[in-house]
Amino acid sequence: MDDSAPSAELAKRRANFVPLTPLDFLRRSAMVYPDKMAVVYGPLRRSWAEVERRAKSLASAIAGAGVRPGEVVSVLAFNTPTMLEAHFGVPGAGAVLNAINTRLDAPTVAFILEHAESRLLLVDRGLSTVARAALERLANPPCVVWIDDPHAQAVDPVGDTEYEDFLASGDPAQPWRTPEDEWESIALNYTSGTTGNPKGVVYHHRGAHLNALGNVITFGLQPDSVYLWTLPMFHCNGWTYPWAVTAVGATHVCLRTVDPAEIFRLIAEEKVTHLCGAPVVLTMLIHAPDAVKRRFDHGPVQVATGGAAPPSAVIAGMERMGFRLTHLYGMTECYGPSTGCAWQEEWADLPLEERAVKMARQGVPNVTMSEQTVLDPDTGREVPADGETLGELALRGNTVMKGYLKNAGATEDALRDGWLHTGDLAVLHPDRYVEIKDRAKDIIISGGENIASLEVEEVLYKHPHVMEAAVVARPDAKWGETPCAFVTLKPGSEGLVTEADIVAFCRDNLAHYKIPRTVVFGALPKTSTGKIQKFVLRDQAKGL
Amino acid sequence: MDDSAPSAELAKRRANFVPLTPLDFLRRSAMVYPDKMAVVYGPLRRSWAEVERRAKSLASAIAGAGVRPGEVVSVLAFNTPTMLEAHFGVPGAGAVLNAINTRLDAPTVAFILEHAESRLLLVDRGLSTVARAALERLANPPCVVWIDDPHAQAVDPVGDTEYEDFLASGDPAQPWRTPEDEWESIALNYTSGTTGNPKGVVYHHRGAHLNALGNVITFGLQPDSVYLWTLPMFHCNGWTYPWAVTAVGATHVCLRTVDPAEIFRLIAEEKVTHLCGAPVVLTMLIHAPDAVKRRFDHGPVQVATGGAAPPSAVIAGMERMGFRLTHLYGMTECYGPSTGCAWQEEWADLPLEERAVKMARQGVPNVTMSEQTVLDPDTGREVPADGETLGELALRGNTVMKGYLKNAGATEDALRDGWLHTGDLAVLHPDRYVEIKDRAKDIIISGGENIASLEVEEVLYKHPHVMEAAVVARPDAKWGETPCAFVTLKPGSEGLVTEADIVAFCRDNLAHYKIPRTVVFGALPKTSTGKIQKFVLRDQAKGL
Repeated sequence: MDDSAPSAELAKRRANFVPLTPLDFLRRSAMVYPDKMAVVYGPLRRSWAEVERRAKSLASAIAGAGVRPGEVVSVLAFNTPTMLEAHFGVPGAGAVLNAINTRLDAPTVAFILEHAESRLLLVDRGLSTVARAALERLANPPCVVWIDDPHAQAVDPVGDTEYEDFLASGDPAQPWRTPEDEWESIALNYTSGTTGNPKGVVYHHRGAHLNALGNVITFGLQPDSVYLWTLPMFHCNGWTYPWAVTAVGATHVCLRTVDPAEIFRLIAEEKVTHLCGAPVVLTMLIHAPDAVKRRFDHGPVQVATGGAAPPSAVIAGMERMGFRLTHLYGMTECYGPSTGCAWQEEWADLPLEERAVKMARQGVPNVTMSEQTVLDPDTGREVPADGETLGELALRGNTVMKGYLKNAGATEDALRDGWLHTGDLAVLHPDRYVEIKDRAKDIIISGGENIASLEVEEVLYKHPHVMEAAVVARPDAKWGETPCAFVTLKPGSEGLVTEADIVAFCRDNLAHYKIPRTVVFGALPKTSTGKIQKFVLRDQAKGL
Repeated sequence: MDDSAPSAELAKRRANFVPLTPLDFLRRSAMVYPDKMAVVYGPLRRSWAEVERRAKSLASAIAGAGVRPGEVVSVLAFNTPTMLEAHFGVPGAGAVLNAINTRLDAPTVAFILEHAESRLLLVDRGLSTVARAALERLANPPCVVWIDDPHAQAVDPVGDTEYEDFLASGDPAQPWRTPEDEWESIALNYTSGTTGNPKGVVYHHRGAHLNALGNVITFGLQPDSVYLWTLPMFHCNGWTYPWAVTAVGATHVCLRTVDPAEIFRLIAEEKVTHLCGAPVVLTMLIHAPDAVKRRFDHGPVQVATGGAAPPSAVIAGMERMGFRLTHLYGMTECYGPSTGCAWQEEWADLPLEERAVKMARQGVPNVTMSEQTVLDPDTGREVPADGETLGELALRGNTVMKGYLKNAGATEDALRDGWLHTGDLAVLHPDRYVEIKDRAKDIIISGGENIASLEVEEVLYKHPHVMEAAVVARPDAKWGETPCAFVTLKPGSEGLVTEADIVAFCRDNLAHYKIPRTVVFGALPKTSTGKIQKFVLRDQAKGL
């Protein structure tokens, strides 16, 4: 036999080639587990058959609203059953799901809706105010459907149609549109962006399917797993867990707001087995008042965390409460989790501090990410695996984004030379585990959200008394990091501006979580060529 | 955005598109778990780093021997570390692995080597005799490398080069050849074929990768799993478990011959967690002498079985010894396991007999098999899901074969109309689980009535003295055909049961026309994989 001249009878055909898509996961779980609990949200319970019926209604309604395959449907919502439905209903119409960060300000939301050429916006009633302000800025706003969530604040809704009415306009018997090519887009997620506007990261059906299977394997999801939604679904599509949890027919427990008392209640009462979250979630759980802490005896709860390495105190604190931590690494450009600190049996015998050092590393690629390396920025070659030489973490595989929407330059830069260049500075340990040492792009990660220091600096520079500004991360017990601003005032402005004035100015111009928590006045350290030395400021911020 | 006119910057490139292949699994496990135990074989222990080094040497040696990508390398060997290495070393050279059934006769082996145009044959020393006889029949025999297994009988080896010398001719530093297209062939497996010559089923890298991930998920493999090789690796590439177990870096425990004492020893001493096997393996374990049965306390051992439904007595017997059964269905044409009897929580409360009825079904498609149906042979449409209407089980997905090598007619027939036609007669239950009633050709037609041989066999298995049973059609002047039963009694039951007893037992449990008119006691002829050879029994029945 010779594959160089493949015979026609061994070619692809309908029986043996099906484009990979996570849509198949819901179809299967609705068939295998029609009556099994799929979604829990407060007192609400929905079975897999119901979730499929609703997702198919949504797909049909979206198509009925005139949205064509390849067009974008945006969703501005919390971790509710609707958000989960959208992960199937939107691609089920052949459309592209654009889940928007609920903490963004109106101008940024407006930018995203316009850049994505969004045709339809689903918006939680509780987010009406920012949505309305964003829509008012648009020349051609999308159709708007509002979600009357029972737990939302009773503000005036935006848009003409309520979600349940919209759903009722769809036909659950209409088969959904599965991709003809697994490279077709399934999602569009905007990064916070270090310079200028956010960039739109495009995912395809193949990558979403594979990353979900990878998460099932890495996190050990089984049909009897119960997954708690402590990680926002707008964040890299909830690290692809809407699809992963569905793939095995486990149970999604929705969570509108991250509240320790509610988290402990749900873990104990719904018998949660798995959850993901930024380090701030872990800190909140550890420091929750004893009154809200609940004991649970259904076995350890698996917790995956990423963004910043969990310190030993956090590992120990979580273990004492009955959790088991796994440290992951990922970014929007690679569908969320792509590497993880795979456990080695011999670590079990290490003292806590040594074990924490091992566990704090970003680790090794998941089974669905093909390759990982750390590249010397000058030579483009792998750095020595010595745990010391800094380079840029790079990834290659089927769960790397298609590219940035309408941004060929940034795409080419990020995906050049056969690698996704993460922009994270890392070392390669002798055991081939990577450890990130710094963020090349000066990103601040606060409560799991990326904050571009440059964006904050741009606002500071607009203040009439500010001459120079630099923003760096300051370690924070609760949020992981918070923005710390170093400001040099214009000559003659000294004494005219207080820290509170600067913070107030930022509040008028920035999303709440991006506002500097600390402001320091004085001259900025610079290199001989005039570049601000952020590493010096970072050290200063640590000591504040 | 509009995917109908995809922009160049969102196209496939090296950073975000990597052809799926199980070769990546070994590369990853050797990186993540270099010192972890990969293979156990008697006193032999090899780490993942060693397995990778040897597999790379093998790939290099194969290329060095002049085998080009797309050409076939055959292996005639038991479940030894060499056989496992071949699952990576052969595709690592870009070649196609042809694992040959060790129990075939020389003419059939010769037919396979010739039909596959095999360029190289690796042969276990213990199989020298059949290999030599097969090679003598060939005009252009392949190069032959013999494996000097320490556990092989000391017969004269065949071929010029010993395996370790061959391996030493390769360079473990040479990178292996990964597929340029995931549709490239990885394996060629000949079906036993009940009529005419065996057919060569071709697998691709994509399907092998996906089916392995599906097995990891369905069987719950984890890095600390220990997998015992009770299923032959020549059987659909061991149901793709050489790749699945490697994908998570678990441990392979090799087993040269299926011997109950050795199986119990390995389970207890190597702390085996998972094994697969034909029903005959389960029967052997249950009926093993008490002296060889070992207790184990490291938790239940997961057992996947397929081929025939496990009767309730087998389920109960296995559970009593500490095993947990899962019933799978598959065939060579779909990479082994493709459907499984997914567990439903509410079954736990059922009495054993009722639970066994549920568990005996072939079930639902695995997460990596897209669709399953039962087709009416006349209309080509799905039968009603009533648990009664017979039709042909059909499958569709990425783990369906490319086709039969050099057999366009059989390929077209098997893969027509967008489905793999399995040739198995099944019903679709109201819960969408399929249950196979018989092979199409095993149906007995008596007085115009269809009798499923399986239904009669299930009754026979319930008889307290019956260990194994098979029912086939016997030509009959009056009825056309009548059921003829071949029965093996349990050890110690010989002489306690007569033909009349068996018939009387059937009369209490079956419709009159389904009762065997003839009962024959004795051992049953079986294939190498433990399947009862009904065509042999049919011939015998004709002569009665």
